[in-house]
Amino acid sequence: MIANPSLLPLLADIADPGLTQALQHKLDQKTKPQGSLGRLELLALQISQILGSASLQLVLPQMVVFAGDHGLTAQGVSAYPSDVSWQMVENFLAGGAAVSVLARHNGIALTVVDCGVKHDFLAGLPAGTQRPGLLVRKAEGAGQGTADSSLHPAMTEAQCAQALAHGVAVVQGLPGNALLLGEMGIGNTSAASLLLARLTGLDIAMCTGAGTGLDAAAVQRKTVVLRDVLARHERAILPLQALVALGGFEIATMVGAVLQAAHERRVVLVDGFIASAAVLVAHALQPLVLQRCVFAHRSGERGHEFMLQHLGVQALLDLGLRLGEGSGAALAWPLLVSANAILREMASFESAGVAEKSVTTAVAA
Amino acid sequence: MIANPSLLPLLADIADPGLTQALQHKLDQKTKPQGSLGRLELLALQISQILGSASLQLVLPQMVVFAGDHGLTAQGVSAYPSDVSWQMVENFLAGGAAVSVLARHNGIALTVVDCGVKHDFLAGLPAGTQRPGLLVRKAEGAGQGTADSSLHPAMTEAQCAQALAHGVAVVQGLPGNALLLGEMGIGNTSAASLLLARLTGLDIAMCTGAGTGLDAAAVQRKTVVLRDVLARHERAILPLQALVALGGFEIATMVGAVLQAAHERRVVLVDGFIASAAVLVAHALQPLVLQRCVFAHRSGERGHEFMLQHLGVQALLDLGLRLGEGSGAALAWPLLVSANAILREMASFESAGVAEKSVTTAVAA
Repeated sequence: MIANPSLLPLLADIADPGLTQALQHKLDQKTKPQGSLGRLELLALQISQILGSASLQLVLPQMVVFAGDHGLTAQGVSAYPSDVSWQMVENFLAGGAAVSVLARHNGIALTVVDCGVKHDFLAGLPAGTQRPGLLVRKAEGAGQGTADSSLHPAMTEAQCAQALAHGVAVVQGLPGNALLLGEMGIGNTSAASLLLARLTGLDIAMCTGAGTGLDAAAVQRKTVVLRDVLARHERAILPLQALVALGGFEIATMVGAVLQAAHERRVVLVDGFIASAAVLVAHALQPLVLQRCVFAHRSGERGHEFMLQHLGVQALLDLGLRLGEGSGAALAWPLLVSANAILREMASFESAGVAEKSVTTAVAA
Repeated sequence: MIANPSLLPLLADIADPGLTQALQHKLDQKTKPQGSLGRLELLALQISQILGSASLQLVLPQMVVFAGDHGLTAQGVSAYPSDVSWQMVENFLAGGAAVSVLARHNGIALTVVDCGVKHDFLAGLPAGTQRPGLLVRKAEGAGQGTADSSLHPAMTEAQCAQALAHGVAVVQGLPGNALLLGEMGIGNTSAASLLLARLTGLDIAMCTGAGTGLDAAAVQRKTVVLRDVLARHERAILPLQALVALGGFEIATMVGAVLQAAHERRVVLVDGFIASAAVLVAHALQPLVLQRCVFAHRSGERGHEFMLQHLGVQALLDLGLRLGEGSGAALAWPLLVSANAILREMASFESAGVAEKSVTTAVAA
């Protein structure tokens, strides 16, 4: 079917039992009771396994916000009008959005990719003009966002292939060794819910939530709409077929970006429900992608918990976030920096001259 | 009884419904669905309520590691020898401990206070010499740590009063508007467990955990020891009586520090089980202290969950940390910076020209 699968980056297995053992030994010699830093220790191990060394530092983290519009919004699945997508992109570029503020305060570079927003961000500018922080990477004919998936496939196979390739190329052009996934697109919780239902077999009612803030009655109506969309595309079973029929341009571009980042052994820090949906698709294509993924937070959006369960992963934060944009990834980023630093910079019992735990249990009988 | 209660800082009620309403309104005008930043929004509100304004920034965060030794270790309640306390203090000062690394990477100044460590950190130095990052604030006669509370009260009332006063004075000498609580003291999970049991009425078995890493049999023996200690001091019911009989010098000093920081309207970021035990005592003296406290993480140490429940608070992180030192507070600190920045720096719908949520629900019937 779609594209040439050989165009997608192929992931090698980076599991290295020798390195893992060496890392664990190094960690166990640090001046602290073994395991006392809890999940931070697992995170430290994973980061070093991805980078291939305990001595490498995370550098130049890149938050990429993939943006796109959704034709399905014509069916009223979101509490906000589609215009908010481009308005928020302008807000990202002006530095006033949550992800702008959070990226700035946490030392993260921010790039927005227009993957198919219903807006021309370069209108009125001389041809060839670049806007700082913005990459326009629309698939051909994606200028109005996706088609309404209640009537048509969300995109053509050619558009999907192009979006995937854009994601690959965007990552190839970024410095550093960590990619943080963010997204913007009114209607994209619907696309993520549809992908979750299709790729896991869960009922759409389990996968559908309030998005930007629907009330109970509206969630129920959204669920009816999404159930019809799934029925219309009942034969779109394979991951890329599902992406074509149900997905968004920002999600497809993210899938390419995730696979490329994983291929390059960057640490991929996954934000919430939409970003995880892109990883869900990438995982269905190449399960090894999970070796390189850290999940930033458990979203307040209903389906995210089930998505994380399906992937068999646990998120770092659980703060009831349901904003997207990459906000959760930006908030979790300092934990990665800290985990990485523990392994590189903490003293060992020997180097610090600290006594180790008594071999015989010290407690009096 | 102890000390002169009037020597302890008295906390005023800082609740300000007008400010709260103004802050909530400001937050609700930010370019995001209302409430979509979850608990980060509550944190933003609390920080601004403590500082008394939405426009004030958190500055010069101060991690203070309160250190002390425990005579009860003679009963074998810890997996590590007491000497580890002073060795770890040296490790903090040399920059190799977990809290050193985490404070450094998260932009936090680190001070260690010797509240009663069984060691002379100034031995061999000319009189009056200061060591950078170290404050020696031992209560009189505290040079060997606390007395063995299975035989005697852990400290005298005079020592307790002095430790409280030291805590007050230490905070008075610190810059900035945020205090991060850390601690070091082999044996101090026992003191914290004892205080938890005494001040909440919970059975000591509910309050006792593995500390730095006891196995099940050792936890059981530790519980027996602690039950005997409680019985010996059955009349030490009031908060300061309990602190005298059961506490540690680092905990008593922390109680003074917390009350002073709260009095000065600093944001107090509480680490794990031991630091929370100091807040438990402070709360029993003056419940208003909680207005100024943020709880960094839920510790893997058994009693911490019950302590947080008793205080009616929820911690930010839940990563299975059980190291202490202030490590969890250092890890949570960037969340406070981010929360504070959201309120100060995010654009409003109006200022960014972003459409607000439709008043009528948009979803098609």
